[in-house]
Amino acid sequence: LGRVSRVGSGVTKFKVGDLAAVGCMVDSCRTCSCCTQGLEQFCTTPNGCIFTYNGIDKHGTAPFTYGGYSKQIVVDEAFTLKVPTNLDPARAAPLLCAGITTYSPLRKWGATKGKKVGIVGLGGLGHMGVKFSHAFGAHTVLFTTSESKVADGKRLGADDVIISKNTDAMGKHAGSFDLIVDTVSADHDLNAYLSLLKVDGSLVLVGVPPKPQPVAAFSLIMPRRNLAGSLIGGIAETQEMLDFCGTRNVACDIELIPMNKINDAYERMLKSDVKYRFVIDMSTLA
Amino acid sequence: LGRVSRVGSGVTKFKVGDLAAVGCMVDSCRTCSCCTQGLEQFCTTPNGCIFTYNGIDKHGTAPFTYGGYSKQIVVDEAFTLKVPTNLDPARAAPLLCAGITTYSPLRKWGATKGKKVGIVGLGGLGHMGVKFSHAFGAHTVLFTTSESKVADGKRLGADDVIISKNTDAMGKHAGSFDLIVDTVSADHDLNAYLSLLKVDGSLVLVGVPPKPQPVAAFSLIMPRRNLAGSLIGGIAETQEMLDFCGTRNVACDIELIPMNKINDAYERMLKSDVKYRFVIDMSTLA
Repeated sequence: LGRVSRVGSGVTKFKVGDLAAVGCMVDSCRTCSCCTQGLEQFCTTPNGCIFTYNGIDKHGTAPFTYGGYSKQIVVDEAFTLKVPTNLDPARAAPLLCAGITTYSPLRKWGATKGKKVGIVGLGGLGHMGVKFSHAFGAHTVLFTTSESKVADGKRLGADDVIISKNTDAMGKHAGSFDLIVDTVSADHDLNAYLSLLKVDGSLVLVGVPPKPQPVAAFSLIMPRRNLAGSLIGGIAETQEMLDFCGTRNVACDIELIPMNKINDAYERMLKSDVKYRFVIDMSTLA
Repeated sequence: LGRVSRVGSGVTKFKVGDLAAVGCMVDSCRTCSCCTQGLEQFCTTPNGCIFTYNGIDKHGTAPFTYGGYSKQIVVDEAFTLKVPTNLDPARAAPLLCAGITTYSPLRKWGATKGKKVGIVGLGGLGHMGVKFSHAFGAHTVLFTTSESKVADGKRLGADDVIISKNTDAMGKHAGSFDLIVDTVSADHDLNAYLSLLKVDGSLVLVGVPPKPQPVAAFSLIMPRRNLAGSLIGGIAETQEMLDFCGTRNVACDIELIPMNKINDAYERMLKSDVKYRFVIDMSTLA
């Protein structure tokens, strides 16, 4: 996220000085069935979707894409997002990852007023899941293993917080959820969350547990339920998310660090000691 | 499935002599959100859905429901189906189980012309899945482990048959299916079938593997896919299925046996030696 410093002659969306953002993608084939549907992240052309980090550099200027740990980046305007000027740029930056990762499934699976929506885990993704679900008007329930996160969950917008290790508390909500977005990237029991869904309810994974998780057929069959996955969002949906955040003044809770603290931040992240995203102040890059 | 021998004074749908059928359910609460949606099989009232076998007998005439291994059954007309008169009754009987179990997910998840639909397994359920998918106009692909079932799969309506143990053959179809209905009740790799789905494609379980099956998050996330389950169908949908079968002359492939061959049939069923459903001729009941 930063200010536009130069624009090419064909650029129409941006002028020098505009606040602009680049997310997880810098290009895609733009012609396949996914790209034309606005799902560039699932571009079906081999090597078509070029991720910002470790992607294949289409222009051959480097062996692969080096991402955003730099003072400047050259990107096609089609993969560049406009950032609402009323948002704090530091708090807007993680919207391009944690924001769109939770916004997209909540929108697609219909988190709206009258729906009961669960968010599993209160980390970088989960805290945005709670904020968006609440902002969409859904009855929002946070699942966490930590008593220490109950107050923060409520502050961020949860109507209720369930300690997921408490099987009695979980059992009381059996068959009552329309949607649960699961942000946890550790091994955990998916059947326990599936059992909380109504008929035609969905459990959507946005976290990636290290191992394949066992799923019982009857967790899905009786009643009819869905287990799905979701990955960031397309460019148009990411712009929609940023515009929504501008209008509703939604942004990430962050800790801003200078570049020379990045190793400390990495150690703290491994201990889950971050509320809820570290953002690097790029003006501190030597 | 049989002829109506007596009707109560309040009965309007049937008269004596009509061909009628009873499926897997004989009653439900009829007032919960599932029942009022026509999803009586998922009735949310405790003990609300009364299955035909081993259900709680609401009328207290027996400790539990004894099902259909008898010459007569007394059932509320609301849970009794009309059978098209042009169908062979013996071939229509398994439609009430194998038929609706495959018809319902193919309809719900949109098996239509222009869609590519897979059916996993060619048993009692699978052979009806192939027939229905073909009848709905979908490009229908059978997955089987047995070379010996290729010809039969094509005879029943499959456009293509893939030997699922052949990883090269499977790999050629990666990311190409809109829907796969999985009828297999043995442990098997769900990730292999998930990898064959397009964005927003669904793998729907109607078989019940004995153990929970491992599912990798990335099988669902990249691209966005669904794993779901389905159980028979509601009363209205079951009638719709029977009417469809009458109009299109679709019925089960069966072997009709007398009651005194039931133990032989059970042994043969354990060896998967049945094409594709045994049906008991109830006139042979001593």
